[in-house]
This record gives sequence, structure tokens and C-alpha cells, in this order.
Amino acid sequence: MNNFQSYQKQRAKLVEKNLSKYIKKIKNAPKILTDSMDYSLQAGGKRVRPILLMATAEAFGKKATDVLPAACAVEMLHTYSLIHDDLPSMDNDDLRRGRPTNHKVFGEDLSLLAGDALLTYVFEVFAQNGNVKNIGAQNTLTALANFANCAGAAGMVGGQVADVYAEGMGTQEAHSTRADKIRKHSKLLADKSLRYFMLPPYTAETTPETILNYIHANKTGALIRGSVETGALLAGAKGSDLKHIKTYANNIGLVFQIVDDILDVTASAKQLGKSNSDKANGKLTFVSLYGLEGSRKHAQLLIANAQKALAKLKNVKKKNLWPLYEMAEFFKTRTY
Amino acid sequence: MNNFQSYQKQRAKLVEKNLSKYIKKIKNAPKILTDSMDYSLQAGGKRVRPILLMATAEAFGKKATDVLPAACAVEMLHTYSLIHDDLPSMDNDDLRRGRPTNHKVFGEDLSLLAGDALLTYVFEVFAQNGNVKNIGAQNTLTALANFANCAGAAGMVGGQVADVYAEGMGTQEAHSTRADKIRKHSKLLADKSLRYFMLPPYTAETTPETILNYIHANKTGALIRGSVETGALLAGAKGSDLKHIKTYANNIGLVFQIVDDILDVTASAKQLGKSNSDKANGKLTFVSLYGLEGSRKHAQLLIANAQKALAKLKNVKKKNLWPLYEMAEFFKTRTY
Repeated sequence: MNNFQSYQKQRAKLVEKNLSKYIKKIKNAPKILTDSMDYSLQAGGKRVRPILLMATAEAFGKKATDVLPAACAVEMLHTYSLIHDDLPSMDNDDLRRGRPTNHKVFGEDLSLLAGDALLTYVFEVFAQNGNVKNIGAQNTLTALANFANCAGAAGMVGGQVADVYAEGMGTQEAHSTRADKIRKHSKLLADKSLRYFMLPPYTAETTPETILNYIHANKTGALIRGSVETGALLAGAKGSDLKHIKTYANNIGLVFQIVDDILDVTASAKQLGKSNSDKANGKLTFVSLYGLEGSRKHAQLLIANAQKALAKLKNVKKKNLWPLYEMAEFFKTRTY
Repeated sequence: MNNFQSYQKQRAKLVEKNLSKYIKKIKNAPKILTDSMDYSLQAGGKRVRPILLMATAEAFGKKATDVLPAACAVEMLHTYSLIHDDLPSMDNDDLRRGRPTNHKVFGEDLSLLAGDALLTYVFEVFAQNGNVKNIGAQNTLTALANFANCAGAAGMVGGQVADVYAEGMGTQEAHSTRADKIRKHSKLLADKSLRYFMLPPYTAETTPETILNYIHANKTGALIRGSVETGALLAGAKGSDLKHIKTYANNIGLVFQIVDDILDVTASAKQLGKSNSDKANGKLTFVSLYGLEGSRKHAQLLIANAQKALAKLKNVKKKNLWPLYEMAEFFKTRTY
């Protein structure tokens, strides 16, 4: 195990220990509800988002434990999004990380509510970062508002909506099914073009590429970006430092979804712990648009951009920067 | 129109105007998503929660506009809960306030995501209250954490879970259906008693009454309580004042759900703008347990307690207290 692997392992353990603590702290809730929340939180995963958040805060001179409430909150938000994404009305997945999905165990109604409860708890836990003396109320509030923006309609959820409507772009059959659904909605709305359903700058220039970039920048990217930005804002990063760490965050965020698309084609269901559902669903993905090699090349370029941005940071603890470089390298190896 | 009615109307208008503004402020989101969020926000309703929040802040010497971000946030939270509550996997309702429910217009997948986006936006908007000079970051963060607690697993969502599982308590048939479902879950969980699914202090003493009180205190009550407490905390209420306003909030919160149960029996579907679904679903309600007269009596008692608590407040603007008294009176008239 190299240095970065032990860094990841140690930080992941810290997060997991505290996720359990936070669930145990919920008093006055039905036991089946907290069990359902806990079931998905303890399902494993690489804890990439909280690790990125802590690594960024450390780069800006704070301790990992200074930002632990926000780090746990970010992982809770990721987990709620998986629970809702797996629901029958969404991806209808039976497996997640090799285990039955939340609704397969607890039922659809309870999974919906467990997701809602987790999403609400995200902000209660995040707010507790204001009690950490090294961080304070003002930085916490700024970071919280920015994170909510990344996670909401203008970020992750917006990306999910575009993704839902992009399902029809990959195969003709899937396209017809989705178009029928849109026409059904359109009876009650006005009759609007497909672009209306997709993304904000629905101009004549909107192409599959712009749609794909929107989905990538938001569906998965926004939360990766949000995690890095949260670490920086909690630590009080400002000016050009904030600008450069945002460039890092954006590039890392985009690459994350590209790697997901690549792995969906190259990895087996067993390796992924879920079914390779993108192709079956006829989804518009980076690989369906640019091919495997084109996707890899683009990912390499983004990773290089991310690392260049790191080199421009000024008011940072230089010796704490390496995990951010390593995280980019980690993504590079994941493309094969 | 009396004074209180014009007060309510003016405050409701203020909230509605700003709800629209906040939706328009969302850049970079698919238009269909913000349309779906807006559809339910603009569906009317009495805006009781933001009015209570503003009235409480005014009682403690702030202006209604000082707490407008939080007031809008509270109404958004209420709206997301209605969207998710109406979904096919929950109450499966076709009508809400006399109009087709959100998923009937936008489809189940988009309604789930619109609810998620609203719930996330709640906290982004709430956090903006920290920029109001009269309120500040510290009070906003304290109020936000408390409100999230009221809205989550230990509050509203906890109450909804208990309510889902209480559906079986009213009729034998509904009970058998629910018990079958629980047994199905239990294959994957351990085999646990019904109490496991219901509420926290699942002791031998747990009775239909304790279950009902938990549901009432949380499903609807927690958000009413949370709105009052938010107004007080944003205004910096402390010590015995905070204690007494919490007593007011608790009593008002409880009475709100009792009135809902009463109206479900006495009002027509047209008056309610939705179907009277409680009896059909075999739900455990205050009326099914104590009858119509017993429920009314209990509501009167709680209203009196709420008004007594108001009389004990010290560091308040006495001339701004009347809307809180009137709100209690308003609930009283709603019981008939």
C-alpha cells in the first residue's frame, strides 16, 4: 500500500466512524428509518468526496478533523442521491455496491423517506461545522450555501433531470419511448421542443455535445466540485487561490463522470457492484459520443489542467498538497 | 376582512412574490425542473408556516423582511413534502389544492427530483438570511440547524414514517396488508415487532395513543413548531423567552394536525381541494381514536395553553404579539 492509499484508507475510516456516530445521535426517530439511512451509509464506497474535502482544507492549512462535520454531510448527500437514483421510478436498480438496493430491503415508501431524511440531515450536520473554532459561523454559512447550490437544481439534481431526458438519445427505440412520455406531459404543459426538457441554454446551437457536457458537469461533477470548494471555503480560501482551486475542482469533477462512463463499458458488473445499465438504457455517454480512446484522451487533458491549477496556489501548505495531486493521478489509473 | 385577515393576506403576498423571485434566480437548471418546482410553489395554500415565522420574529422586535429568506425556505420545505407525499409510492394522490398533483403533470421521475431540488434549495435560501445585517451568520446557522432537525428524521420525516406504518391501525383489512408488507421486509431485516417500525421508545407501554401523539407531534406539528422556533432563533430569543415561545410552538403544532384530522371528516373534498383519504386508507387519526367532540375539546385545551405561554414572554414588542394570539384563534375556528 503506497502513501496515498494509506491516506485514503485512514481518512475513509475517520469518515465512516463519524457517519455511524451521527446516525446514533438522532434521537426521537423511528428505528426502521435510521436503520434504513445507516444501511446505505455503511454500504462502502471509496468516500472520494469527503476525502477531497478534507484534503483541500488541509492544503489550506486546516486539520482534517476541523472539517469533519461537512465531510460527513457531503457523503450523506451522495448517499441520498444513490438511494433516490435506484428507486423504481428512476433507474430501478436491484443492486448497489454488490448488495440489494435500499428499496429492495426497506420498501419504496421508506426509501423515499430515508433519502429525504438524509438530505435534511446533511444540512443539520454541516451547520455543526460552525461550532469548530478554527472555522466559525461565517465560513460555514458561505460554504453551506455554495454546497447546496452544487447539489441542487443548478447542479447535481439539474444534471440528473437532463440525464433522465437524455436517455432517449443513444438508441432510436429508447428515444421513441422517451418522446412518447414527453408528448404525454406536453398535453398538460405547452407543446415544447425536446430542448425544453434538457438544459438551460436551449438555443438552436444545442447539440448532443452541449447536452453531454451539461450532464457531466452537473450529474456527478457538481458534487465532486462542491466537495473541493467546500474544503476551500471552510478554510477561508480567497481571491486567486479560490479561483485556481475551483479550476482544479471543475476539471476533477468532469473527469470523474468520464471515468464512470468508461468503466461502465470496460468493467464487469462484478467489478462495479452494479449492472452496466448505460448501454441497455440507450444513454448518451461520453463513450457513445467519442469512443473509448477519445474519452480517455479527454480525461488525460482535464487531469493535466487540474494539476496545473494546483501549481498556481499561493497561500497553501505546500507539503499538504500532494493528496490533491495524487487524487488526480488516481483518476488517471481508473481510466484503464 | 378583519385585521388578522389583512395581516395574513399581506404577509402571504410578500412570501409568494419572493418565492417566484427565488425560482427565477436559479440559473443553469433545466427549464422543466424549475417549472415543476414553481408549479407546486404557486399552487396556493394559506402560507401558515412563513406567516408564523415572520409573526414570531416581529414579536421579538425584527421586521418581517428581516427573515424573508428563511420564511420562503420554510414554505419551500412544506411544498417539497407535499410533492413527495403525493407520489404513487406514498399516498398516490391525483389532486392537491384542486389541481393535478405534481407527478400527474410532470411524471413520477421528475417530481421526485423536483422535490429533491426544492429540499436542497431550502437550505441555500435559508443561508442567505445570514447576509441580513439585523440577523447575522451565527443566529442564522443556529436557526438553520434547529429547523433541519424539525424537518428531518427526528421531526417531520420521522412522523411520516410512523404515519406510513400506522395506516394499518384503523381497519383490520388495512392492518393485514401492512403486516404482510412488514413481514416481507422482515425476511431481509431481523424478524421484529410492529413497534420496531413505528417510533422510538418502542417499549411494552407503547399504545395507539403514544403512536398517535408521536405522529401528531412530528408529521405536521414539527414544521409548525419549527417555523415558530426559527422566527425566535433568528431574532436571537434566549432563556425563558425561548422556553415559552417553544411551548406556544409545541401546542400550536399539535393542534394543527388535530384540526386536519377533524376537517378530513367534516369538510367535503371540494372544500379541502383533495380527497378525504384518511378513512379510506384506514388511518389511525385523532378522530378515529377520540371521536369528533373529544378531538375538538383537546384542541381547545392546547390553544389555551399556547396563549398562556405567550402571556409569559418578556423581551418582546407587546404591540407585535397580537398575530400570534390571532393565529391560535384562527385554529379554533377551523375546528368547526
